[in-house]
Amino acid sequence: MSTSKGISTGRPRLDLDGAAFAATLRIVHEHGYAGATCERVASAIGVAKTTIYRRWPDKGSLIIDVLLDAFGPLPLSGDTRGEIIESGIRWIAEKIGEPGVGAAFAGVFSEAVSDSTLREALTFRLQEPYRRALQEALDEPEQRMSFLIDVVTGPLLHRLGISGEPMAEADVGALVAMVVPRFDDGRGTAMRTSAPQES
Amino acid sequence: MSTSKGISTGRPRLDLDGAAFAATLRIVHEHGYAGATCERVASAIGVAKTTIYRRWPDKGSLIIDVLLDAFGPLPLSGDTRGEIIESGIRWIAEKIGEPGVGAAFAGVFSEAVSDSTLREALTFRLQEPYRRALQEALDEPEQRMSFLIDVVTGPLLHRLGISGEPMAEADVGALVAMVVPRFDDGRGTAMRTSAPQES
Repeated sequence: MSTSKGISTGRPRLDLDGAAFAATLRIVHEHGYAGATCERVASAIGVAKTTIYRRWPDKGSLIIDVLLDAFGPLPLSGDTRGEIIESGIRWIAEKIGEPGVGAAFAGVFSEAVSDSTLREALTFRLQEPYRRALQEALDEPEQRMSFLIDVVTGPLLHRLGISGEPMAEADVGALVAMVVPRFDDGRGTAMRTSAPQES
Repeated sequence: MSTSKGISTGRPRLDLDGAAFAATLRIVHEHGYAGATCERVASAIGVAKTTIYRRWPDKGSLIIDVLLDAFGPLPLSGDTRGEIIESGIRWIAEKIGEPGVGAAFAGVFSEAVSDSTLREALTFRLQEPYRRALQEALDEPEQRMSFLIDVVTGPLLHRLGISGEPMAEADVGALVAMVVPRFDDGRGTAMRTSAPQES
């Protein structure tokens, strides 16, 4: 209920996180990924640069935390494999469409192409929890779920880069229609996660 | 045949272009997109910064020229629609795998998310010639060819961002298997470009 915009360094971490995450998304949305410096985030929430750097050693780790917070847990739903995959595609399409989120996501990706530390963080901290959730829900090998993430997230980010706008609903539908059958082939329509193994 | 590494500003533009393109790819490969500054390119080829800035007003336009040069014309081949699309997918997969090219491509994309001038250049100078070539070869509407480019280029760049390596052959094959049938549906296997219109 505080109306103060400043946050003292003595406040609990949760407040710092929430304020920094919101400010980062706003700054990325307004100034782009390159323009969203840790200095700008610090200044926007009224803390010292060192407060930001103590919590996040570099911009990449701040952005990954911002994305983890923005995405939250993967809310898979549906009774069939196809419905489950579709729910995941529509969820990430919506998330990438939120102001700042898609630009932060695309920015951290391209920075990771030539930064192996950031790439590891991106893979293990950001992607792995979602890949595991997909593996469990769909009972598929790891490599196939990485490919699923490539063919869903890649086009959504590409469209954002080319058009500056999230992928339109009709194309998200076309993406669902293209991807779902490839992961539904020969596996029936029911979830197999809890099916007993035949031996 | 010259062994000199320096290039005087009096040389023809073609030499400057070729030297700057090669240096840019090398620098992006070694230092990443963010590290590839116009200053670094100028210094690598032994010209003044102003020589680079006279030719390319900003880094984005340099990178787009680098990519246009690296990609060259779209070499579509094959007798059926499926073969033609497959040839395009395998061509861009190989290009994105060339040192520096994928990183430059991913970098300019994410910068474009929040830079409308760069986005226009990316759309009209880089993407449009390829989209038109696809439209002509496949006799498909513009919007559908933009979607084809999204679902091919997006996953290839996403994989590069996550793994730091180009997409492996087996997954490029899986991408072909996923994409081709969606653009082959109900259109038969022959090219329709020169088919007479029924009326």
